[in-house]
Amino acid sequence: MDYGAMTPAEVRRLIRKGEITSQTSGMCRGYAQANLVTIPRENAYDFLLFAQRNPKPCPILEVSDTGSRKLHQIAEDVDIAKDFPKYRVYKKGELAGEYTDVSELWRDDFVSFLIGCSFSFESDLLAADVPVRQIEEGCNVPMYRTSIPCVPAGIFKGNMVVSMRPIPHELVPKAVLITGQMPRVHGAPVHIGTPEAIGINDLQHPDYGDMVTIKDGEVPVFWPCGVTPQNVIMESKPEFVITHAPGHMLITDVKNVNLKY
Amino acid sequence: MDYGAMTPAEVRRLIRKGEITSQTSGMCRGYAQANLVTIPRENAYDFLLFAQRNPKPCPILEVSDTGSRKLHQIAEDVDIAKDFPKYRVYKKGELAGEYTDVSELWRDDFVSFLIGCSFSFESDLLAADVPVRQIEEGCNVPMYRTSIPCVPAGIFKGNMVVSMRPIPHELVPKAVLITGQMPRVHGAPVHIGTPEAIGINDLQHPDYGDMVTIKDGEVPVFWPCGVTPQNVIMESKPEFVITHAPGHMLITDVKNVNLKY
Repeated sequence: MDYGAMTPAEVRRLIRKGEITSQTSGMCRGYAQANLVTIPRENAYDFLLFAQRNPKPCPILEVSDTGSRKLHQIAEDVDIAKDFPKYRVYKKGELAGEYTDVSELWRDDFVSFLIGCSFSFESDLLAADVPVRQIEEGCNVPMYRTSIPCVPAGIFKGNMVVSMRPIPHELVPKAVLITGQMPRVHGAPVHIGTPEAIGINDLQHPDYGDMVTIKDGEVPVFWPCGVTPQNVIMESKPEFVITHAPGHMLITDVKNVNLKY
Repeated sequence: MDYGAMTPAEVRRLIRKGEITSQTSGMCRGYAQANLVTIPRENAYDFLLFAQRNPKPCPILEVSDTGSRKLHQIAEDVDIAKDFPKYRVYKKGELAGEYTDVSELWRDDFVSFLIGCSFSFESDLLAADVPVRQIEEGCNVPMYRTSIPCVPAGIFKGNMVVSMRPIPHELVPKAVLITGQMPRVHGAPVHIGTPEAIGINDLQHPDYGDMVTIKDGEVPVFWPCGVTPQNVIMESKPEFVITHAPGHMLITDVKNVNLKY
């Protein structure tokens, strides 16, 4: 099956039936994918405020109604509890299990946050001949904890996590302009070069993901990363959280190009 | 006193002492001004969600911590209860009074929303030789209720209110591009020409503000308007709301140019 050429609705249906449980990278080319944070209503105001105050690491594409497993803005015909190929459940900040369907765990007080993902701008970088190393090397993007504080909100506080892509020095301005057009999927870099200036002391050993090759003449460029909100949530140890499993995302009906406007 | 050339901190200090109680239009040239909605925490989640779902009419610049009269992001040294020249208090959707200081009314459960204002993009339009008619004619911008539904959130629902500026037809694309650079102060127009297509049946009689002259060769251009959130809040009749009085805004430390990035 060529999942890359299928429509988002077709792929979501296969995921819902349990026929796809793999990572979603490369599926439904041209459409945005979304990260998930589902938390009880009790913590939802603080999290929504955290996102409002930190839109670069935490760009929210849609927030569900309380208790609802449906969406209305970024996709039609969605079941939030079934349409991600894999979920993680955390209790008081500890991983409590992985599931391919969380409908049995659903509660009337759950609120779901759908968060933008840098997959969307990576396809624009590639289209404009800016290399994306972790795609070339077939691994995860390297991610680092930084010393850049997020603006706290209620129970949520912590530093920003960034993703790193090595960019040939002559293409750095182009990479800034391309990604700056898409603030709803993290937007422009937060830092260029000099990793130690943002508290990254060992570039060769990322805190999450895999290291990639940095070639001569390339600059490490750092973008705000969607691991930030999950990381901040885990640190604050709320009673119960459901997230997507890394790389196992919701495929939305939103075309990447429409994230620019 | 030339308030236009003073710093935001200087003008806020005069307003706090009660020495300025007038409209703030034209004060502290180059700096953004903000609208106010202060509501009890009980309604704040629904309102924050409404803003997240309707960022064009309701672009939030900052949300206070619950109970706090301070701000941290858009201005230092602020007293939310004193630094607007005039406030309005609404009880169950009815205007209950105007005040120049609301510190005596303050409660520990109040949350304040500071909302972007189109003053910021009007200075860019003027700088680029795009006329802004209500400034030329020394009156308020005309505003209209439309048939464009906002996305509802909790207790808040209603249609969008728009402001109208007549633009010479050859300058319409330029006006779209200039204002589109500033989504945090309403951004690009929501509609161009054909007022009846968005439910405006009598262009000569705006629902708020004043009518302005539309000259031959000019097109009515409609922008999402900051009256939308106030209007939606009033319709839902929450127990207690404080807003700024129209035109009597907070002068922030944010330069208009920085609203583009």
